[in-house]
Amino acid sequence: MGKRIVIALGGNALGKNLPEQMIAVKQTARAIVDLIEQGHQVVIAHGNGPQVGMIQNAMTELTRSDPEKYIPCPLSVCVAMSQGYIGYDLQNALREELLDRGISKGVATVLTQVEVDPQDPAFQNPTKPIGAFMTKEEAETLVRERDYQVVEDAGRGWRRVVASPMPVSIVEIESIRDMVDAGLVVVACGGGGIPVFKTGGHHLKGAAAVIDKDFASEKLAEQLNADTLIILTAVEKVAVNFGKPDQTWLDHLTPEEARRYAAEGQFAPGSMLPKVEAAVKFAESKPGRTALITLLEKAKAGIAGETGTAVSR
Amino acid sequence: MGKRIVIALGGNALGKNLPEQMIAVKQTARAIVDLIEQGHQVVIAHGNGPQVGMIQNAMTELTRSDPEKYIPCPLSVCVAMSQGYIGYDLQNALREELLDRGISKGVATVLTQVEVDPQDPAFQNPTKPIGAFMTKEEAETLVRERDYQVVEDAGRGWRRVVASPMPVSIVEIESIRDMVDAGLVVVACGGGGIPVFKTGGHHLKGAAAVIDKDFASEKLAEQLNADTLIILTAVEKVAVNFGKPDQTWLDHLTPEEARRYAAEGQFAPGSMLPKVEAAVKFAESKPGRTALITLLEKAKAGIAGETGTAVSR
Repeated sequence: MGKRIVIALGGNALGKNLPEQMIAVKQTARAIVDLIEQGHQVVIAHGNGPQVGMIQNAMTELTRSDPEKYIPCPLSVCVAMSQGYIGYDLQNALREELLDRGISKGVATVLTQVEVDPQDPAFQNPTKPIGAFMTKEEAETLVRERDYQVVEDAGRGWRRVVASPMPVSIVEIESIRDMVDAGLVVVACGGGGIPVFKTGGHHLKGAAAVIDKDFASEKLAEQLNADTLIILTAVEKVAVNFGKPDQTWLDHLTPEEARRYAAEGQFAPGSMLPKVEAAVKFAESKPGRTALITLLEKAKAGIAGETGTAVSR
Repeated sequence: MGKRIVIALGGNALGKNLPEQMIAVKQTARAIVDLIEQGHQVVIAHGNGPQVGMIQNAMTELTRSDPEKYIPCPLSVCVAMSQGYIGYDLQNALREELLDRGISKGVATVLTQVEVDPQDPAFQNPTKPIGAFMTKEEAETLVRERDYQVVEDAGRGWRRVVASPMPVSIVEIESIRDMVDAGLVVVACGGGGIPVFKTGGHHLKGAAAVIDKDFASEKLAEQLNADTLIILTAVEKVAVNFGKPDQTWLDHLTPEEARRYAAEGQFAPGSMLPKVEAAVKFAESKPGRTALITLLEKAKAGIAGETGTAVSR
């Protein structure tokens, strides 16, 4: 009996630019189709750091070229564009790999919004730099006219910073669930999702934020009632005392162990730490749920219990 | 018993820029939800002229800003981005209108590729201008390095031109069908779809082309076995002798009548002509199929047989 698996692709799975992405998605598709071939239901989420950066830069250059005609493009719209850009390549690579193996399954990318809370403390202290470097004058104009928050990056100019709030809910969750139930391979929550606020009634409004893709994937996995969340990273297993003589690879982590190691500073903030935190959140969300942290090419072996770090109660 | 309807939104339904689009999609959503409220299954396709133009311009400015770092972005990728951009706003407006009326239905935008034929005669004579004006030098470099075809626009500079081939097949048709069957409101084939060639085996490759959204919608309606294709335009009905003293609005057109009027030059190329041609194609594709050409705000009355021009055998 197959499992329902949400897989969170990291930057390595997509490359950093157009030509890299075209190549990277093929290898990514092979690893994912390995899981589908074993009978698992797979839903794919992914990051968008370099891609949304490129789009944001392009929209900034467009506004610079004709400020009268082109207002600055909201970050939420840039995330939506990045879902189109990445989803197209990923969907295509998956489709091709499935057909090459004689597996008849539709693949569809769904534009996905993710609700965030305007009261999330992250909005008090935005730290995520986004888009092109600006002159002081450009930055000041955007602060004045569009409420941007900016920071100076020593010597290289000014940059916009946005918050990275926690995901509250996947807006399109029912559509995604219906599609998975119908047997489709679904790409969703690209770039952590298009961040939106509820603003009264049923209205949603784009938020100037980026959502961590591991936390968005965790929320997606919870709301889809997945059995397993696979968080891909650049190492086969989580380690303690990483890079030291007593470095130890971990096959299994309980939430309690993970919290203790995290408190010791074992996991790098912005790197392994959010992955471990997302894995713990999933493992604690319901009995029987397991999160797996491993390399893309070890996903199949990891699901078989042969490698990776499994996080479960 | 509700009908299965594919609705092709034109430029008026979306506006020409970011602020216009935010407003236009709300009115569009009201007209579409009117149909859903009556029990019809509705699939929405749309154009992307101004939007993909903006994205193409932005990507051109990005390449200009740093040609070493950013290669020119393929048109197929720009179309994918435009599906993200437009689909996000449209999906949101539909979701809100449905919820406001107490209708519980998921809405999902699916990235859609549309196969075109490299032997399509349109590729022999590309006529569709796309993207920013360029200097002669920029144009010549792109012709030399990237096989672009360009034309000079008297006095305003050089522009890239691409082909507008006919759609052969909707790549994601099975996914879209499964979603419609599951009761979802689906946005698909944005901008006429991401144009792709089959290049041996199961491989697809982005094509430098734009697909007419009315023809793409027609193909989508055929492949979904829709009852009705609604093509929205800026007039309530099709007319003959348009703007002349003997102007006559048409309530109904048979394919034969439509062809006769088209041969007389009654329908403007690039405007009403492709809409009438797409309508005829759908009406002739299977007995019982009807295409309706009308205004967005008359779609409900048109489906009730009260207005618009119905094209059927």
